[in-house]
Amino acid sequence: MTVSPLAPANFPELPEIAGVTFAAAAAGIKHKNRVDVMLAVLAPGTAIAGVFTRSATRSAPVLDCQSKLGHDPSGPAAILVNSGNSNAFTGGRGTESVLALTTSVAEKTGVSADRVFTASTGVIGEPLPHDRIEAKIDELHANQSATAMEAAARAIMTTDTFPKGATKTISVNGVSVKIAGIAKGSGMIAPDMATMLVYIFTDALIGQADLQALVSKLNAKTFNCITVDSDTSTSDSLMMAATGASGADVTGNADFEAALSDIMHDLAHQVVRDGEGATKFVAVTVNGAKDDADAHKVALSIANSPLVKTAIAGEDANWGRVVMAVGKSGAAADRDKLSIRFGDITVAENGWRAPHYSEDETSAYMKNQELEIGVDLGIGDGKSTVWTCDLTHGYISINADYRS
Amino acid sequence: MTVSPLAPANFPELPEIAGVTFAAAAAGIKHKNRVDVMLAVLAPGTAIAGVFTRSATRSAPVLDCQSKLGHDPSGPAAILVNSGNSNAFTGGRGTESVLALTTSVAEKTGVSADRVFTASTGVIGEPLPHDRIEAKIDELHANQSATAMEAAARAIMTTDTFPKGATKTISVNGVSVKIAGIAKGSGMIAPDMATMLVYIFTDALIGQADLQALVSKLNAKTFNCITVDSDTSTSDSLMMAATGASGADVTGNADFEAALSDIMHDLAHQVVRDGEGATKFVAVTVNGAKDDADAHKVALSIANSPLVKTAIAGEDANWGRVVMAVGKSGAAADRDKLSIRFGDITVAENGWRAPHYSEDETSAYMKNQELEIGVDLGIGDGKSTVWTCDLTHGYISINADYRS
Repeated sequence: MTVSPLAPANFPELPEIAGVTFAAAAAGIKHKNRVDVMLAVLAPGTAIAGVFTRSATRSAPVLDCQSKLGHDPSGPAAILVNSGNSNAFTGGRGTESVLALTTSVAEKTGVSADRVFTASTGVIGEPLPHDRIEAKIDELHANQSATAMEAAARAIMTTDTFPKGATKTISVNGVSVKIAGIAKGSGMIAPDMATMLVYIFTDALIGQADLQALVSKLNAKTFNCITVDSDTSTSDSLMMAATGASGADVTGNADFEAALSDIMHDLAHQVVRDGEGATKFVAVTVNGAKDDADAHKVALSIANSPLVKTAIAGEDANWGRVVMAVGKSGAAADRDKLSIRFGDITVAENGWRAPHYSEDETSAYMKNQELEIGVDLGIGDGKSTVWTCDLTHGYISINADYRS
Repeated sequence: MTVSPLAPANFPELPEIAGVTFAAAAAGIKHKNRVDVMLAVLAPGTAIAGVFTRSATRSAPVLDCQSKLGHDPSGPAAILVNSGNSNAFTGGRGTESVLALTTSVAEKTGVSADRVFTASTGVIGEPLPHDRIEAKIDELHANQSATAMEAAARAIMTTDTFPKGATKTISVNGVSVKIAGIAKGSGMIAPDMATMLVYIFTDALIGQADLQALVSKLNAKTFNCITVDSDTSTSDSLMMAATGASGADVTGNADFEAALSDIMHDLAHQVVRDGEGATKFVAVTVNGAKDDADAHKVALSIANSPLVKTAIAGEDANWGRVVMAVGKSGAAADRDKLSIRFGDITVAENGWRAPHYSEDETSAYMKNQELEIGVDLGIGDGKSTVWTCDLTHGYISINADYRS
């Protein structure tokens, strides 16, 4: 598969995170000889937080993870992820597969089963051949290594065109604290579904409740602010593990929050950059809304509009479609106070096309690979930024032209 | 332009409606020598009802029509519609254009200005050259004819690939009552926007408030149940005029309601059949929801999902994407009570693929040009049907490949 034109130049060099080891293996879940399962093992005392899809049809592993968060972190923990099958909409059998896998990991690694978290991504509605994964757990356990995070990033890819990673190291009271994360998404090929999986690790010390609060807060501004095609996965999961091995307490630490925020933004943007058929990366920023919730509604309405996204694909400065998307969003808006800009070019204001609007200048701007659409509603202080990509023939080809 | 493969075989023969006359003309609004304006004149006593887009950025003519509904019907009335320019997002100048046109029609036809309704469809953000329309009003007035409704249907087309009409004649207490309607939509070419316009005429006798209540009720089950691409126009308008010329009072008449419902369904389906790039016409029926509102939410979530729509374009029986769309809808759902059918083929039930599911049988069904997706949520009595089309390369080509 051709790598997305929006991909970063390189996969970053990820540091070892004390207290976290990884291994990946080829279990033959959907394809032979493809690395499709990864196991991470986390030292005793690791705090684990997570955010998950709110879909009403979420997968068995998502339901299992949600039931297990918030437990006593005194023992070790493990995260087992497979690609090739999402174990979603698989009825009672899906729950049995999760139980079989978590029990098997517990037996072979000594981690308590209620600290074993799983995720599955790929085909839905097919029984997960969990015996193939079980057969690899001894190998995954034996091969654990602090340097295998990139291998883990590759194991969770499905139709992604590049592996996704990000890292930051900060100093907390003179102690070096490392954070590194991996993600997969948003490739889809019938009958696969969009699934975004994100795993972030740090050797910082922080309690489970504080970590959960921080991850939930930052998630709202990062992964909840991206959209490729408005379709929501049954399997979306983000988990973060803090081993505490550095000894540096980061509770309430602004530098840690900023570094984690950077990593989450980076990974979220990489998911958009691998959006199916994407040729443009677009930031939609809304200011001046009644409140932040209204601003987010407007930004998502623009970012999800097929007419806006096809105009961007066509390098067409079609600000009329932005007006339309503001109008349909359901947010409070006043036509005559609305202004719209593409990059630094004001295209509309005071309820009409800007007086100095130049079609040539705006069209030239639309040829950029990275674009910004700015909307000011002019009625309040609410603001939001959402990131998306364009809607191209590539999206149709990936999702309609080829049968699974 | 190639006519949609989903177009009806013929434009129907529309009857004369006593009390209604039409004329169409070429005003040169966007293109020279294209018939782009129509004027309908309605006899004194005609009750007029309307429903309009709820967009926060609705056009100047929409705002004007909304302010005029419900007035005393004792005098005559007129409806003036142009294509080629939507007079939307045109600031104070848009309001001036509407005033100029309604004043001009009033002066030249003797209709009171507060009974002159206008609509505009086409490019947005460009000043409407209303002087070109004003120059044609004498001609439009002089050429009024009861047989020119098809010409009116053609005058309001923009990127439609076929004109849209529907009619029914019923008998009310031995008196023949005629209903006929025309519509345009949903073609879009940058920087034009989707605009749906619908005009329905009858010689039945019914009060304005009763007519409005009936039209609003039926609109909720017809035009509010279609979607091409989830984008909402600034200009959508449906108006209905009842001249009373037949003398047959249809207040509370079930046959009249059924006939009007048929016409509104027919026109709404024709709009979907002319959806950009459409190759499949799809009915999405949801039963067993908590209530009708939840059922509608689920039906729209499926009908608007790019992944569902591209799977249909690819003739892929990808019911997993239907599960996904149910899950993301926000409606109450229980994975294990959900069942899904494509046509008469049950593909999923009891939280999993149906036991006798046959990929070959289902794939063969997907080759039909008209498809039905059925979902039963199994938790209540709520139901809803929504009509849509597939998402194809044609949609991308129309909206991205060509610059205006």
